[in-house]
Amino acid sequence: MTTTTAIADCLAHHDGSPLYVSDPAPQLGDKMEIFVRTARAAGAQRVHVRSIVDGEPSFAEAQIDRVDGEETWWRASVEVTTTELSYRFLLETPTGNVWLNAGGLSRREIPDTVDFRIVTHPAPPSWAEGAVIYQIFPDRFARSAHHPTGPLPDWAVPAAWDDPIPYGTPAGTRQIYGGTLWGVAERLDYLHSLGVDALYLTPFFPARSNHRYDACDFDRVDPLLGGGAALRHLTAQAHRRGMRVLGDITLNHTGDAHPWFRRGQADPASTEAGFYYFGEDRSQYASFFGVPSLPKLDHTSPELRRRLYEGRGSVVARYIEEFGLDGWRVDVAQSAGRHGAIDLNAEMARRTRGTMRAVAPESLLLAEHPFDASSSLHGDGWHGTMAYAGFARPLWYWLGGQDVSELWGVPGPMPRYGGADMAAVMRDFAALIPWRSVTHNLTLLDSHDTPRFRSMAGRDHHHLGVALLMTLPGLPMVFAGDEVGVEGVHSEDGRRPFPWDEAAWDRATLELFRALIALRRRHPALRSGGLRWLHCADDVVLYERALPDETLLVQVSRAAHTPLAAPLAAENLLGGPDLAPGAAMPADGPAFHIWRTARP
Amino acid sequence: MTTTTAIADCLAHHDGSPLYVSDPAPQLGDKMEIFVRTARAAGAQRVHVRSIVDGEPSFAEAQIDRVDGEETWWRASVEVTTTELSYRFLLETPTGNVWLNAGGLSRREIPDTVDFRIVTHPAPPSWAEGAVIYQIFPDRFARSAHHPTGPLPDWAVPAAWDDPIPYGTPAGTRQIYGGTLWGVAERLDYLHSLGVDALYLTPFFPARSNHRYDACDFDRVDPLLGGGAALRHLTAQAHRRGMRVLGDITLNHTGDAHPWFRRGQADPASTEAGFYYFGEDRSQYASFFGVPSLPKLDHTSPELRRRLYEGRGSVVARYIEEFGLDGWRVDVAQSAGRHGAIDLNAEMARRTRGTMRAVAPESLLLAEHPFDASSSLHGDGWHGTMAYAGFARPLWYWLGGQDVSELWGVPGPMPRYGGADMAAVMRDFAALIPWRSVTHNLTLLDSHDTPRFRSMAGRDHHHLGVALLMTLPGLPMVFAGDEVGVEGVHSEDGRRPFPWDEAAWDRATLELFRALIALRRRHPALRSGGLRWLHCADDVVLYERALPDETLLVQVSRAAHTPLAAPLAAENLLGGPDLAPGAAMPADGPAFHIWRTARP
Repeated sequence: MTTTTAIADCLAHHDGSPLYVSDPAPQLGDKMEIFVRTARAAGAQRVHVRSIVDGEPSFAEAQIDRVDGEETWWRASVEVTTTELSYRFLLETPTGNVWLNAGGLSRREIPDTVDFRIVTHPAPPSWAEGAVIYQIFPDRFARSAHHPTGPLPDWAVPAAWDDPIPYGTPAGTRQIYGGTLWGVAERLDYLHSLGVDALYLTPFFPARSNHRYDACDFDRVDPLLGGGAALRHLTAQAHRRGMRVLGDITLNHTGDAHPWFRRGQADPASTEAGFYYFGEDRSQYASFFGVPSLPKLDHTSPELRRRLYEGRGSVVARYIEEFGLDGWRVDVAQSAGRHGAIDLNAEMARRTRGTMRAVAPESLLLAEHPFDASSSLHGDGWHGTMAYAGFARPLWYWLGGQDVSELWGVPGPMPRYGGADMAAVMRDFAALIPWRSVTHNLTLLDSHDTPRFRSMAGRDHHHLGVALLMTLPGLPMVFAGDEVGVEGVHSEDGRRPFPWDEAAWDRATLELFRALIALRRRHPALRSGGLRWLHCADDVVLYERALPDETLLVQVSRAAHTPLAAPLAAENLLGGPDLAPGAAMPADGPAFHIWRTARP
Repeated sequence: MTTTTAIADCLAHHDGSPLYVSDPAPQLGDKMEIFVRTARAAGAQRVHVRSIVDGEPSFAEAQIDRVDGEETWWRASVEVTTTELSYRFLLETPTGNVWLNAGGLSRREIPDTVDFRIVTHPAPPSWAEGAVIYQIFPDRFARSAHHPTGPLPDWAVPAAWDDPIPYGTPAGTRQIYGGTLWGVAERLDYLHSLGVDALYLTPFFPARSNHRYDACDFDRVDPLLGGGAALRHLTAQAHRRGMRVLGDITLNHTGDAHPWFRRGQADPASTEAGFYYFGEDRSQYASFFGVPSLPKLDHTSPELRRRLYEGRGSVVARYIEEFGLDGWRVDVAQSAGRHGAIDLNAEMARRTRGTMRAVAPESLLLAEHPFDASSSLHGDGWHGTMAYAGFARPLWYWLGGQDVSELWGVPGPMPRYGGADMAAVMRDFAALIPWRSVTHNLTLLDSHDTPRFRSMAGRDHHHLGVALLMTLPGLPMVFAGDEVGVEGVHSEDGRRPFPWDEAAWDRATLELFRALIALRRRHPALRSGGLRWLHCADDVVLYERALPDETLLVQVSRAAHTPLAAPLAAENLLGGPDLAPGAAMPADGPAFHIWRTARP
């Protein structure tokens, strides 16, 4: 039974980062240089790269590029013969052949599933590389000082800014706290000072709930949030500060108040009748988790695709072109386009991306995926998905205290991990996708769909989680309020309004966020560098983020532990002790440390 | 570094066989019962099945079906909501949740890659279930006593039946020994007495080599082999004896002597110009491994698809309808339909199967695939592929002596495995494909593309290989001559003519083949039963094949070893000692033993 795995990145390593790949965004037909490092202990006498050309493995022998202390760097030239090139390394050693792919080293024959992959699809927008993304639930972030909230619709229940959330009750999704897009715009200086690169707004389309995932109109921005003028103002003001803004669209379903649904249900001859999966009895139809108010969309309808995401007039295109959005997060992307034998999920992603590329090549396309998203990260679709499975959950299982397993409907108690388990799960999920997706997955500690990590883990472990979030690959997402220590023991409870009364802030937490976001901005290795797990035990993980110009070492300790020996000399970036090769590293905990060395 | 893996099938097990799945060929929307067994030591207190419905995991709690000694059998009902249903089990234990999927047990979160899969595509033909398939290289099997071979073409070099093969020289592929399809038909009683279910003939289309993988005409059967009349006679005679006949077609390329290629190359305006990948300079074109005489076919041409495999008039359909073939093996299927950014491989498989289903629902479609074929065994395409990666190579690495790695162009020496490595590799590859593909993969010890296993492994280990071949899941393929001990140290050398002089036969080897094929026929558990690996060590593997009515135990020992304790009482099927629970099992080697118990 698998419980822990020794991760042997120290013996041999390659990933898709610039330290190991000469061109992270090659064109079909390009030649590229790829590098792999092997420690003396790995015993590699010759190294070959195996790539798959039209279904056939092809071997090229690597040359020694340089020897650096105990490590040998090997270089091979590979032609990118296919849209998605799959490759691995073969190490000839005195005790036989050893394979190296994204799953690590193996003496046994292994399937191609976790071979390294480099793709020739057009690259994600350059601004997105490693960007910090700030998630805003518009009703809960900020009221405007200048633009009062308009009259409430019939379904809404008014709430004062510091009212508690009646989570788990019907009112939980109907309470309106009155945040608006005007309010967000008025707080941009705060967000800019925090250092975030982009805002991601949960839906702004009119709906019949405060979360708005039950859209009843894609033609306008909800007047409750300030309407289209507020959105235009927000994107313009954000752009002025160098920040981007992402929207949120549900392609899986609409609300049952949507006129498409009403028309489709009333008139079987209507175009909109083809937008949903109606039964013979039109009161029966497919819906999200069987919830009747969320009828599921049928993507076999060309007109639905045209209205939502295909071509210039679509919703996806219009809010980029007319309102200045810089991209989208697609809701319930694990299920959208799928119904029984119908599976247009990949097609939907590809078409959405095609539309966005045509109207704004520098736009970003992310998708929700609470589970194993690997099969949806091949092909020219999502740039990345929300890394619940490959990041948030293993982190919760290492650092979380409170049981949150109910969230995903998995029976039984929440798993408890050692650090090696966390790292192994992060690697297992990353190994299945191209490196480009690893660096463009939305990493997160929590979201509007989970309890606050602060409440799961407590203050000390929250800080460790922030250290992992800001120093591992991906697009770190900060759910508004996390940075000042907002709590919430349930997903609805986590949607508490942002406490603009600074007396309620945890200043140390805020300073930690600021410092680590700034560090990430200052050190490209944290945004774009390769990742090697150097040591993983129950209470400590040590890893390296590296670019040709610099290497950062990160040690995160859940509790005090036996000290590790420093692998090299390095300068502490957070004011603690520097490292001398072979000397004992700090062994306190809960704690984290970050060092830098100019030598990769 | 992965070297060996403890396989814990004894703790908990499920596979797609009838012991665990109420309906191995469900229709979309069917409910089916699935079963999982857990040993007391696994500690399962509750068990759930997780299936993926429209991209979302859905859990159903299993009920205890029965307790059988130390084992509990759990039953759950699952609705087949999608074409390819992916599922796994969750065991709640006192020490936390444990997942069970085709990769085994794991306490950690695992990606969906090796979840169990059951498919709703139309089932393979019923005659194929576990069938033994006899591979014939037509020039080398038998001359006819009544129909002399016709005049040789210009490229051919005549050979006497006992001439050695000048392998590795140009003459290696030009020597004609004069076997014909008439000759095959005259030997059907021999094949029938051996017990084979189907013949697989390597290509019979005219070409410019003795292997004929460079077809220059799909419109007729090579006159050198007796032409269409001989093929019709052969299929009719085989059918009379209850045997089937499969053909072999190359969809990846033709020979450069094919009129399609000649016309296409000469006339850029011709239809056939679109059948190949010609460069600006028409002397340049894509070809198989860069060999100019094997120009690669371009499947984007609808006319090419129509001529080869799409619809009633295609080659694939015609030889079934007009000549009585029962199916096809597709050559170079790992590469056919793929060229750079173009990948019509899955499409080609699906269309070929569709054509065959339309003309003969009971026809079988297999494909060559020397590598990881898992990605081509999803969808409604090949029923199975040649299991080089998941069967032959791990077996060679356990039992082979001679280094054969050159065959596949992998640098370095041939790996040496313990029995646990062999089993783990077999399982790793099987875990990626639906159970139906596991039972319809063509398992093999050797073929016309490898040295003879007899020469790799020696006589004793050859016999162990035959025991594995005939008792593990799949369609066991026997390359003509293997059953009498034919040798061959290289793939061309392995194509030695069948020695009809019985003085040259190894009678014991022949009797072993006869006995094990008969055993397989007598015991459905060997053809259709589930597979549990019970004990795997360096020199011994012990496994179970089980159906509701009977369980067979197979022990294969490479060398003498510490005896295992018998897991249950069972009757020896090969005349050796019976088993008493807990008593020592035989520990001799090289040796194998097979027992049966009525209790699953």
